[in-house]
Formats: sequence, structure tokens, C-alpha cells
Amino acid sequence: MTGTDLSSAAARAALRGSPGARGAGEDEDAARDRFARGIWSALAEPGDGTGGALRDRWGAAEALAIAVLTDGREAEAAEAGVEPASLKKARERWHPRVEGVGETFAAARRAGAVLLTPADPQWPAGFDDLGPHAPVALWTLGAPERPLTPGSAVALVGARAATAYGEHVAMELAAELGATGTTIVSGAAYGVDGSAHRAALRVDGLTVALLAGGVDRPYPAGHSDLLDRIARTGVVASEVPCGSTPTKWRFLARNRLIAAAAQATVVVEAGWRSGSLNTAHHAASLGRPLGAVPGPITSAASAGCHRLLREADAQCITAADDVRELLGLPVTMSADDGGRTDDRTRVVDALGVRVARSAEEVARRAGLSAGDAAALLGLLELEGRASRGVDGWRRC
Amino acid sequence: MTGTDLSSAAARAALRGSPGARGAGEDEDAARDRFARGIWSALAEPGDGTGGALRDRWGAAEALAIAVLTDGREAEAAEAGVEPASLKKARERWHPRVEGVGETFAAARRAGAVLLTPADPQWPAGFDDLGPHAPVALWTLGAPERPLTPGSAVALVGARAATAYGEHVAMELAAELGATGTTIVSGAAYGVDGSAHRAALRVDGLTVALLAGGVDRPYPAGHSDLLDRIARTGVVASEVPCGSTPTKWRFLARNRLIAAAAQATVVVEAGWRSGSLNTAHHAASLGRPLGAVPGPITSAASAGCHRLLREADAQCITAADDVRELLGLPVTMSADDGGRTDDRTRVVDALGVRVARSAEEVARRAGLSAGDAAALLGLLELEGRASRGVDGWRRC
Repeated sequence: MTGTDLSSAAARAALRGSPGARGAGEDEDAARDRFARGIWSALAEPGDGTGGALRDRWGAAEALAIAVLTDGREAEAAEAGVEPASLKKARERWHPRVEGVGETFAAARRAGAVLLTPADPQWPAGFDDLGPHAPVALWTLGAPERPLTPGSAVALVGARAATAYGEHVAMELAAELGATGTTIVSGAAYGVDGSAHRAALRVDGLTVALLAGGVDRPYPAGHSDLLDRIARTGVVASEVPCGSTPTKWRFLARNRLIAAAAQATVVVEAGWRSGSLNTAHHAASLGRPLGAVPGPITSAASAGCHRLLREADAQCITAADDVRELLGLPVTMSADDGGRTDDRTRVVDALGVRVARSAEEVARRAGLSAGDAAALLGLLELEGRASRGVDGWRRC
Repeated sequence: MTGTDLSSAAARAALRGSPGARGAGEDEDAARDRFARGIWSALAEPGDGTGGALRDRWGAAEALAIAVLTDGREAEAAEAGVEPASLKKARERWHPRVEGVGETFAAARRAGAVLLTPADPQWPAGFDDLGPHAPVALWTLGAPERPLTPGSAVALVGARAATAYGEHVAMELAAELGATGTTIVSGAAYGVDGSAHRAALRVDGLTVALLAGGVDRPYPAGHSDLLDRIARTGVVASEVPCGSTPTKWRFLARNRLIAAAAQATVVVEAGWRSGSLNTAHHAASLGRPLGAVPGPITSAASAGCHRLLREADAQCITAADDVRELLGLPVTMSADDGGRTDDRTRVVDALGVRVARSAEEVARRAGLSAGDAAALLGLLELEGRASRGVDGWRRC
């Protein structure tokens, strides 16, 4: 199949039907771009720099035409910064997958997956910050009319092997933030991710699950129901086409999308080498605020969070308000009138509850002049903290 | 007693005997300075700015001579930046205590307390950073020949109402640091302080307890035995004279000594308004490194630590090595070879454990060129992560 020209009539026939239901009313260029992006998503792995360079220079459709040739158009590739040798190697990567493109489109139709591209208003604005690493397209289930991440969005991520503490905190944060209009973005994994999605759904909040495999392949399988429920009111999305298995590489690539879709990332619980640290580093490298929830230092499940606090300058997150602060949203700060460590304290210290003391004795014990002590005793009496009797002063 | 001139022969007689056994062989000026500092400690509360200003300008002995007059020498006070009105008020604070000075010295003799002054080699070097807030003297039990805080010293402080977690962590840190030559400085309170002292003693480490009251008044009473044990190999010290009760004011003042005596302060467990946050802020204002041990965000006993991580730029402390890093001591860093997120990962992803796959199939699944995939398969075979059979490649 190497050498197939996808611009040929035969190839077009094989890929009949544009992916999903979107695109009605698009002009021909827009439709061709969408179609080409759908094909690109099936030919190249996430983060394929050569494909990105060709698309950046020539657009998705023209780049595809260049890509599927066995040779030729080296000058145009060079204009995109792709040397002939790189082009040759890239074509060797892409061509073996041409045969399967039709099947991925068919799988998308069966699953009801809808293709989003940067031209769609639903496209997460945050993906723009990924520059050349932005996904070529996004396959979605439940794709709503509204943007994937309207208003504020936070990525709540963490360990699959979360403890009861981690799941509890994930639920508390997701419920409080989800209930107040912040979209909860996560990866649908067991543990922290699942708890965050679930709590958001419970409070009728918006939640978005970004998968490492195709959206028609619920992963993990035990979260099939959860993913169905997310797609009902939120979105389940992936940059790899339907039928794709989630591989370690794709998990790592998917993590950059979680970080980019949200305005801030919070790691709730993570071991020393947890994959969620990868998401955290993506967030940091995108200049996104990063938070980490601390836990007991005796718990290996929190070691990754502490590592982020120490090494990645993550903010210490203890409550939903701390996350709102990360997102630049208004917060209700706890009242704090500061410590009262003044002379008044010294006078109160010098008073007894049972034993009455003269003002002079109080002054001596407090190490204050008699005049100062008398004045402060008067103030404390007004505040109800000291009482004056015939035998002297007492603490209340 | 107001108006007593302590330089009079009668006053000298009342204060017969220089405090403690130290000072043998001192010249007369040094002896007079030590004597005056002992008296100052009994006349003025910790942090008395007027006394400090007079001593800074005129030395402890001459300042004392000015202090104990009912009037006169205003010009010399003014030269120390003390206005006549301030001097008058200060004298009104100090004079009522003159009567008790003899008794505090007698109590010191009974308790075996030894007076240290900045002239002594045992004086903690860190106190110099307190400038005008440095203590005038230090009453000590167990005063060793060596400095109070030889080499590295860390303040381990925290809540009296510590949880089992807080006490466990305090003990672990104190034992590991104490066993490797770092002096453990703390405040002898219940909870974190006591656990830190106890663990340091258990590993034959040096530990110093700084008290808010007189060293002859073990506080809390339940720690009498512990304080005895500390004084046997370490030091129990206070800037207030024997017979003084620990007041809230003196606790707050004492905290600055804990922070100053150590090169770094670590808060192990602390509620939102714990007094140990006061020690932390002293450490920060002295430019000392500050650490805080995180805990569950569901535990009120860790709220103060999290507050320090958020608001005071405290380092997140998870182990003794983190404290050593704060102290600038050599540490054994955990090995970390970083994540392997390269093409190799993609090839491993593309291999099956049971199903054998051709190199071409692996290349297609990995999205790599056949050449690259073959090269990586060879490398993985050398590493024992892939095996080549007659039917193709498998993951090991």
C-alpha cells in the first residue's frame, strides 16, 4: 500500500464521508482541511514534528498531499524546514498506516465520534499555547455546542493507585469547583482522575476526559460507565483516532493536552514517579500555574506531590479556594486578625484568675510602668478581659 | 525601693557573689559586665528596647548605673537615643523589680544555673543576628564547655497538641539529624518539641531546650525529667532569671531565641495559629532558611505548616536530607534517572508479551520508520527488554 496517493479518486472513495456530523455549511477549503486533519490524526503519532512542520507551512490538506507521495516535492518540504532525508523517513512512518485510515473513520462513525479542529469554536483555546505541539485534531464523544472548556478549567490529576485520602481530596476539590462553574479536566484513570470526574458529575459540573487511546475504546474498561456519563453532559476526547490502543507514549502525549486544556493543573496525590508529574511538568513548561496537594510524608502516594512542592515551585493546595487563587478567580480568604503580642498580652499574663492583684503588682509582673499598666487594665476591663474588684484586678 | 542605687555598697552586698561559677580569671571590667547583665536580666522583660539602647551605647554596667537612678544623667541617655520621657517610663518599669534581684540570684545559685554572656565562647553565635533584640544574658543548666550550638543546629518546633503523625515525624527527623552531629534546638513543650528532644537524647545527640520561664522552673511540669536529662548532656537555657514564670509574652520572646540559635527552623506540625508559626516568622525575618513538614490537608494540626508553605515560602520538608539541604550540609540525593519517554518507549509499547510481531508491524504500531524500529529493537534486545524469535519480536 506504500505509495498510495490519498488525493487520488480511489483513496477519496475509500475514505468516503467526512468524519462525524460536523462541517455542514463549511466551504470547500474548510471541509478539505477538516478531512485532511482527520487523516493526519490516523497517519502520525502525537507530536510528529515533521508532519507538524509541513502542516504549519502548507496547511493540513496540502501537507497531506506532500506526505503521501513516495517521492517528489522535496523543495516544498525543504521550505517547511524538512530535509529530504527527514521527509523520506517520515513517509516511511506514515505510509504503512494509510491502509488503516478508512477503518478508523468507519470506527468513528460507529462510535458517533465527532472531529474537532482548530477551526471549531469548541476547540480549547489553551491548545494554542502548545504551538507546534498542538494536536492536529480532536476526536470527541458528546461534543457539545459550547466550547470544551468554557470559562475556567482546572486539571485535577493524580495517581491511579490513590489512597482513600487522595480520592477524598480529589472529590472534595472537584465537587466544590465543579459546583461553582469550573470545568474539571482529567484523564479518566482509576484513582484521582476517576474521583474528580465523578464528583464533578455529582454536582452537575462540567467535566472533560482526555484519553490516550481512541474514544471508542473506553480505558480503563472499568470506567466504561463513567466515560458514558461524562459524554452525556461533558466531553470525552482524544487526539488519536478511533480504534487506537492507549500506549505509554500516547499517555505521555495525552498529558500535554490535559495541561494545555486547563488554565491550571493540580496534582492531588502522586507517587515519586507518577505519570501525573509528567502532566505537571507540561503545565509548568506552558507557563500554567501548578498546584500540588500535600499529604503525610510517611505516605509514598504523596511523595510526587512533595517533589513538585520542592522542585517545581508548585503552590501548596489545601482547599478549593487555593485552586481558585491559582486560576485567578475570586476567593474567600480566611479571616486572620494576626497575633496579639503587645503590651496588652503582658498585662493579661500578669493577672490571676483567682488571686486579685494591685495595679502596681500587675505593672511589676508585666515589666511595664504603673501608668501604662493602669491604662491597659482599663482597656482590658472595657473588653471584658479583666475585672476590677475591691481587692484588686483579676483576669476574666 | 525605688531609687536604690545598685552601684552602692549596700546593693552590692545584697547581690553578693557573682552569678554561677563562671567568670573565674576574668578581669574586673569583664566581671562587672557579667554582673550587670545578670541584674539587667532581672530588671527588664525580654526585648526591652530602652535597656538595649542604653547598653549598646554605654555597656551593660554603665547603663545599669544610669538605669537605677530616679533622675539625672538624661544627657547620656539622650546620647543613646533615649529621650527623657522614655527614660522616666523605663525607670518606672525597672525600679519595682530591683527589690527582687537578690532573690533571683539566690535562686540561680540554688538551681546551679550558670550565667552566659556574649563574652563567653559558649554564647550561640547566631544570637548576634538579633542585633538590638539579642538577649542581655542567658541562664543555663548543664552549661557545657563546648558552645551551646556547635557546628550545625536546627530548630525543630511545632504544636503542643501534636498528632501521632507529628510526634513520629519529629522523632524521625531529630533522631536522624541528632545521630549525625546536628544539634536539635527546641522549646521543651509537649508534642513536637518534646518528641524532638527525646529522640535526640535517644541517639546520643546534642539537644538544647530554650525555656520561656526560669530554668529552675521546669515547664511544663510533666517534662521535669526530660529537662533534667537534657541538662545532663545538653543545655537548658533561658534569658529570664530563675524564679520567673513563663508568660505568653515570654513564650513569644523565647521563640526568637530558638530561631536565632539554629541555622534553620523546621515546623513539624502546627495548627493555623500555632505559636510555632511565630518561631517560623522570627527565622524568616532573620534570613534563616525555613522548612515546614506537610501533612494531610484534612488535618487541622498541619494547617499551619501548609500556611508556611503557601505564605512564607517555606521549603517542603519530607526527610532528614531535606533539612540537611536547608542547613547547607551534604546530602545523599535519591537517584533519579528521569522518565524514558523516547522512541524506545514507543517500540516497547508496540510489542506484545505473548503475540510475536514482525519488525514492520512494530514500526507501523509505533509510528516509526522500519529502519528506526529495527535499530531500536536491536538496542532493546541488548537491554533484555525485547526478544527476537523465529516468528517475530516479543516484549520481555
